[in-house]
Amino acid sequence: MSGRARAAGSEVLARAAWSRLAEPADVTAGALVAILGAVEALAWLTTAADGDLDHHVAALAAERSLDATTARRVRRGVDRWRPRLDGLEPARDLDALDRMGGVLVVPGDDGWPTSLDVLGAGAPFCLWVRGAPSPADVLARSVSLVGARASTGYGDRVAGELAAGLAAHGFTTVSGGAYGIDAAAHRGAVTVGGATVAFLAGGVDRLYPAGNSDLLLAMVERGGLVLSEVPPGSVPSRVRFLRRNRLIAAAGAATVVVEAAWRSGSLSTAAVAVDLLRPVGAVPGPVTSMASAGCHRLLREGRAVCVTDAEEVRELAGGLADDGAGVRAAEDARDAVHRGPLDSLDGPARQVFDALPLSGGSRPEDLVRGAGVDEGLVLSALGRLELLGLAARTPGGWVKRRA
Amino acid sequence: MSGRARAAGSEVLARAAWSRLAEPADVTAGALVAILGAVEALAWLTTAADGDLDHHVAALAAERSLDATTARRVRRGVDRWRPRLDGLEPARDLDALDRMGGVLVVPGDDGWPTSLDVLGAGAPFCLWVRGAPSPADVLARSVSLVGARASTGYGDRVAGELAAGLAAHGFTTVSGGAYGIDAAAHRGAVTVGGATVAFLAGGVDRLYPAGNSDLLLAMVERGGLVLSEVPPGSVPSRVRFLRRNRLIAAAGAATVVVEAAWRSGSLSTAAVAVDLLRPVGAVPGPVTSMASAGCHRLLREGRAVCVTDAEEVRELAGGLADDGAGVRAAEDARDAVHRGPLDSLDGPARQVFDALPLSGGSRPEDLVRGAGVDEGLVLSALGRLELLGLAARTPGGWVKRRA
Repeated sequence: MSGRARAAGSEVLARAAWSRLAEPADVTAGALVAILGAVEALAWLTTAADGDLDHHVAALAAERSLDATTARRVRRGVDRWRPRLDGLEPARDLDALDRMGGVLVVPGDDGWPTSLDVLGAGAPFCLWVRGAPSPADVLARSVSLVGARASTGYGDRVAGELAAGLAAHGFTTVSGGAYGIDAAAHRGAVTVGGATVAFLAGGVDRLYPAGNSDLLLAMVERGGLVLSEVPPGSVPSRVRFLRRNRLIAAAGAATVVVEAAWRSGSLSTAAVAVDLLRPVGAVPGPVTSMASAGCHRLLREGRAVCVTDAEEVRELAGGLADDGAGVRAAEDARDAVHRGPLDSLDGPARQVFDALPLSGGSRPEDLVRGAGVDEGLVLSALGRLELLGLAARTPGGWVKRRA
Repeated sequence: MSGRARAAGSEVLARAAWSRLAEPADVTAGALVAILGAVEALAWLTTAADGDLDHHVAALAAERSLDATTARRVRRGVDRWRPRLDGLEPARDLDALDRMGGVLVVPGDDGWPTSLDVLGAGAPFCLWVRGAPSPADVLARSVSLVGARASTGYGDRVAGELAAGLAAHGFTTVSGGAYGIDAAAHRGAVTVGGATVAFLAGGVDRLYPAGNSDLLLAMVERGGLVLSEVPPGSVPSRVRFLRRNRLIAAAGAATVVVEAAWRSGSLSTAAVAVDLLRPVGAVPGPVTSMASAGCHRLLREGRAVCVTDAEEVRELAGGLADDGAGVRAAEDARDAVHRGPLDSLDGPARQVFDALPLSGGSRPEDLVRGAGVDEGLVLSALGRLELLGLAARTPGGWVKRRA
């Protein structure tokens, strides 16, 4: 056992142990640890597993006032956890992490990202972290970008641009380290020097998928994180992938789906975010692209807000809450690009402008007839149009000018 | 005056006259006609315009209990309408329409599309119609498809496919006859033999824009309509274009925007539809396409539902109200395409499947440890997996099979 692991104390060791004993999001294990504390829960399990289990469960239920359902769940839980007690060596797992330069973070640590606490009994026991020592700091302003492994060039480009645009405003991009949209998002952040975080489904010693290991290492080396709730050596099974998605949904202030097929793991991440009352965004795409069908489904079902650029994503994440004026100014600027003096004209002035000839010239009474507005309005409109440089008085009468 | 126009009666002639005297959506004219009837309103205007106007307005206000504001509006209205009394000849306009094989339809006629009545005092006085004699019949099941003149190939294709898909289910496509999305929608309907309707901003004698005149003629000849609220000879001015949009929004059971820039006339049509409580749809597109920016804006602002195919448009229009089962069946079918036997597995069975080796073989107790589920679940999962052809018992133990 290394010095670091020894210094970690029994709470840290116990949580490391529980992260191997129970599968992710095992809410019975989470509840037991919440009730007894990680150390006592582990001691109880070790004792109960070797003795008269029914007796130990009954005694626990009596002592802690557990109802019959909870007691039954704990009883079944022991059947799941007991086989993994053999050979359990959390200190060895911590040593392995230590050798990779990683740290274990547990609830209560300064580095613990409290955004995960929303998961309740399904929250991780601990996080096995490679990269920056404080997940709390890195994740303080963050958005989760998720999407299809089978992404298109369009989706990859949009994901990369969103991540880069978020990084430029100090937002961390969270994703799952997979091929496709995940990788494009991570890469977009790394390219502009932004921090980006990958929650892995397996252990952080396995940079999965192998094709992304260079990218994941680059993230670790450049202020980002690769982390997992399962210890080194754990296989990234399908169930762990699905449960990992809840961490991505909880970690980001908002979750944005860039591309997703009609049925897709990304939609499960979005569904968790909805359940957690986190804002969800979806990037639209061509209706002819099956890779966008899941995004359109989210929009149709009113489960996601349509987002088309990094600014809209930041707005979704609430990071601009202090800066609403900035959003409005940007929208005004966007409008102004498309607005000329003609657009400022109200109805009658516009009607008079339209009725003006380009040459020859009209008298005001002709314009009354042509524009269908009364003479007073015609005269005031002509004055205004002249001021704007849109009309001119000529010897033959009034004519149109293009500003 | 032709026989048809003479037979039309004074109400028809008076409405034809009002459609020339007042600009579209002149709600003061609309209110006057609603209060007095078209014939009497025209007689009053003719008398008042030639005499002491203040006196006539005061007498009208007293007789009809008009408040001061309304009286003032009528007074100003006369200034707008009076110049157009000179040379007013509605019978000549009707003759011109007659020569084109058109008909005039007024409220109360069997052919009047009552969907326009929602416009109240801003409803048209009459419709100048070329094509099928009954707009009411053609518009009975209809959807308005609108969008940018500066459309992309993507937008044109989607508009055409939506119109064709709607026609296949007996829906008429309504639009504005313009280049771009309008033309693509009309063409998509005509191509599959569907009825399609263009509301023009100018007179129906001017098939505007000229480049679409063949298309508009084809619509007239194949069960569709070209119609206008302004008489033959009227110029399609900008204001008339904008006000024409309210007819498109009112005529369709739903309005769908296919492509629109950030600021766009199509958005004004959508805004009217929202005001009229008509459902509005928007077709998403690439976020990199400025031609879709207006559609995404509608989606972001929650003013439109995301629609991606004709079925979703029909659902929006309520045409499937009697046929909800059809929608669900279609969605189930769409799901089923993507679903294999693995997807039917619940948590523990899936975990056991994932933990099974492809070769060699595992004992149930290995699987308890590997999958993290208790032995009872492992055994029942193995039974189920064997039934589904996903697991097999070999001399070396249990192995995975791919169905």
